[in-house]
Amino acid sequence: MQSELSYIDTPSLLIDSAKMERNLQEMAAIAADAGVALRPHVKTHKSPSLALRQLELGARGVTVAKIGEAEVMADAGIRDIRIAYPIVGESKLSRLTRLMQMADVSISLDSVEAARGLSDLGGHIDRHIPVLLKINTGLDRVGVMPDEALEMAKAIDSLPGVHLVGILTHEGHALKEPSREGARQCAIQAGHTMAETAGRLREAGLGIAEVSVGSTPTARDIAYVPGVTEIRPGTYIFNDYNEVTLGVATEETCALTILATVVSIPSNDRAVLDAGSKTLTSDLLSPPSSRKGYGYVKGYPEITIARLTEEHGILSLQDARSRLEIGQQVEIIPNHICPVVNLADAMYLMKDGVCEGQVEVLARGKNR
Amino acid sequence: MQSELSYIDTPSLLIDSAKMERNLQEMAAIAADAGVALRPHVKTHKSPSLALRQLELGARGVTVAKIGEAEVMADAGIRDIRIAYPIVGESKLSRLTRLMQMADVSISLDSVEAARGLSDLGGHIDRHIPVLLKINTGLDRVGVMPDEALEMAKAIDSLPGVHLVGILTHEGHALKEPSREGARQCAIQAGHTMAETAGRLREAGLGIAEVSVGSTPTARDIAYVPGVTEIRPGTYIFNDYNEVTLGVATEETCALTILATVVSIPSNDRAVLDAGSKTLTSDLLSPPSSRKGYGYVKGYPEITIARLTEEHGILSLQDARSRLEIGQQVEIIPNHICPVVNLADAMYLMKDGVCEGQVEVLARGKNR
Repeated sequence: MQSELSYIDTPSLLIDSAKMERNLQEMAAIAADAGVALRPHVKTHKSPSLALRQLELGARGVTVAKIGEAEVMADAGIRDIRIAYPIVGESKLSRLTRLMQMADVSISLDSVEAARGLSDLGGHIDRHIPVLLKINTGLDRVGVMPDEALEMAKAIDSLPGVHLVGILTHEGHALKEPSREGARQCAIQAGHTMAETAGRLREAGLGIAEVSVGSTPTARDIAYVPGVTEIRPGTYIFNDYNEVTLGVATEETCALTILATVVSIPSNDRAVLDAGSKTLTSDLLSPPSSRKGYGYVKGYPEITIARLTEEHGILSLQDARSRLEIGQQVEIIPNHICPVVNLADAMYLMKDGVCEGQVEVLARGKNR
Repeated sequence: MQSELSYIDTPSLLIDSAKMERNLQEMAAIAADAGVALRPHVKTHKSPSLALRQLELGARGVTVAKIGEAEVMADAGIRDIRIAYPIVGESKLSRLTRLMQMADVSISLDSVEAARGLSDLGGHIDRHIPVLLKINTGLDRVGVMPDEALEMAKAIDSLPGVHLVGILTHEGHALKEPSREGARQCAIQAGHTMAETAGRLREAGLGIAEVSVGSTPTARDIAYVPGVTEIRPGTYIFNDYNEVTLGVATEETCALTILATVVSIPSNDRAVLDAGSKTLTSDLLSPPSSRKGYGYVKGYPEITIARLTEEHGILSLQDARSRLEIGQQVEIIPNHICPVVNLADAMYLMKDGVCEGQVEVLARGKNR
């Protein structure tokens, strides 16, 4: 592998096209089998060309976190965009107005303040902006608690200019579970909570058409919980070592690696790669694990990427000088793929070990 | 402050121009007073316009980690560039050849393998490439141990096409010290080690003209160690909460903040900002500290940025609903400024609280 790829400068992101395609097809098949809509979160790849492939395979639309990501997707012709993020502030609302001229946009929120901003905007442009109430099913990030949902939903529904179409959660806390079974229980519990909450809101006369849930670690289980109408996984397109650790992916289904070069072997228990925190990020593994460090060096399970500085990845291993050599290339599966892609301008598409093109990360850095 | 900046979309990077200028002038004055050259590491700002200001204030040249950063600086007309990073591999050497047609380039290294690549290149283009031997003074990243330096220096010096002009270290381990005094001792020790090592190499007949040392936390002390000829601090242009924690900066000398917006207050002990790990990075504080979290919210010392997900900064605080409001802007001093800047396309230049322009981060993402 090393010599074959020596024409690729490092550090670089390599996509195994065949693996990515299998990942995309598997999740599309799960959604179809479960009878739910698939709306992939594009924060993982930030690339319109890959989003378009997800739509070709049956995805209903895309999910984004930020308006900036939505703008890039809309520019590429994508018409059904859900912003799973509270939109707050005049600047954002102004950009949203322009975005809504290009695409059908729906937005999640968890406060009357955010709803009022959208309500004013909807009134101004004479539209009812579709909104979904964000529910906290355990991640403890944004979202109202299930027992507060009815009151908030009524308050939102009473506002002009917005149309409450559903409820939405991100059960990302599943990634903190120690096992696949833990993640499964987390998924089922979150699914039931969402279905019950939707039921209570409907009983009160609210038109809750959509029950949207998220996350790659839970998708295979929560898609089958009765009442769920949509899944929004993101990471599944590439997978990462978080998913491998949790047991919902394997090394073989990780479709994106970082190609790096050994640039120094200063001692026999240490080697240094040209990929540091400006390439791999400082994200550690999320699931509890005995495995430490900043990624997995393929083919070298005994090596730990023990420390990162900005442009150095410091490997801890025994007999470094006989096991590695300066100039050698290695491939790394990152702990968390999404912020890694966000550091790159492009990813190389590899087929049978040969580079066949590249994918531009057009929404890289779009954090507004 | 909030209402004044509401025209700026968030999250955004704000440079306080006056504070930055004072930081730049202070370090220039230290170098002049100590009689050493100043060669700022531009990895912190990645912006040619700021590098040019550093040169105007007397810097001898710039330091970079990667050829990609050097290319951006050379494109802006900067002629004296030191790559403080081992250059390994055909692709890199090919790019280096082009770079050397635009600028005077010197390179640090710590292996005969890296020296051979440069030696071959130097022979090929009929030049002697200036190189500096990297010494490990305690960071345990790259670099030979001081007692191995003579042997390696002789091996490098015996190669054609390269010219060993000095030795170089980065005493970045000072940032792990618990106090300013610890960092000072670290600086003095590293400086003496470098001076002694240079002396031994000179006694053996090697022409060691330069003794180059690095890092903002040590610069004020190591610049005055006899024998040191050059300092390469980077972070000092902006400072960050690492430097504040260590005691070499204060909140008042931190010249760059992240403007963020409160987008949700889901409970009375939690609020959420629109700046997550894709804005602030996951870097924790380096010096030992009782302070936890992912940055310092100015004006709110009791708030902890307790968790980050990609686009959410989760604040832990009491009485959240009476202390903050949705839509409110806050400013964050990041733990580690360098990788934060590397996530941004531009930084806003603020003067007396008014935006007066922006600085493009032209070398953002240049990790090759």
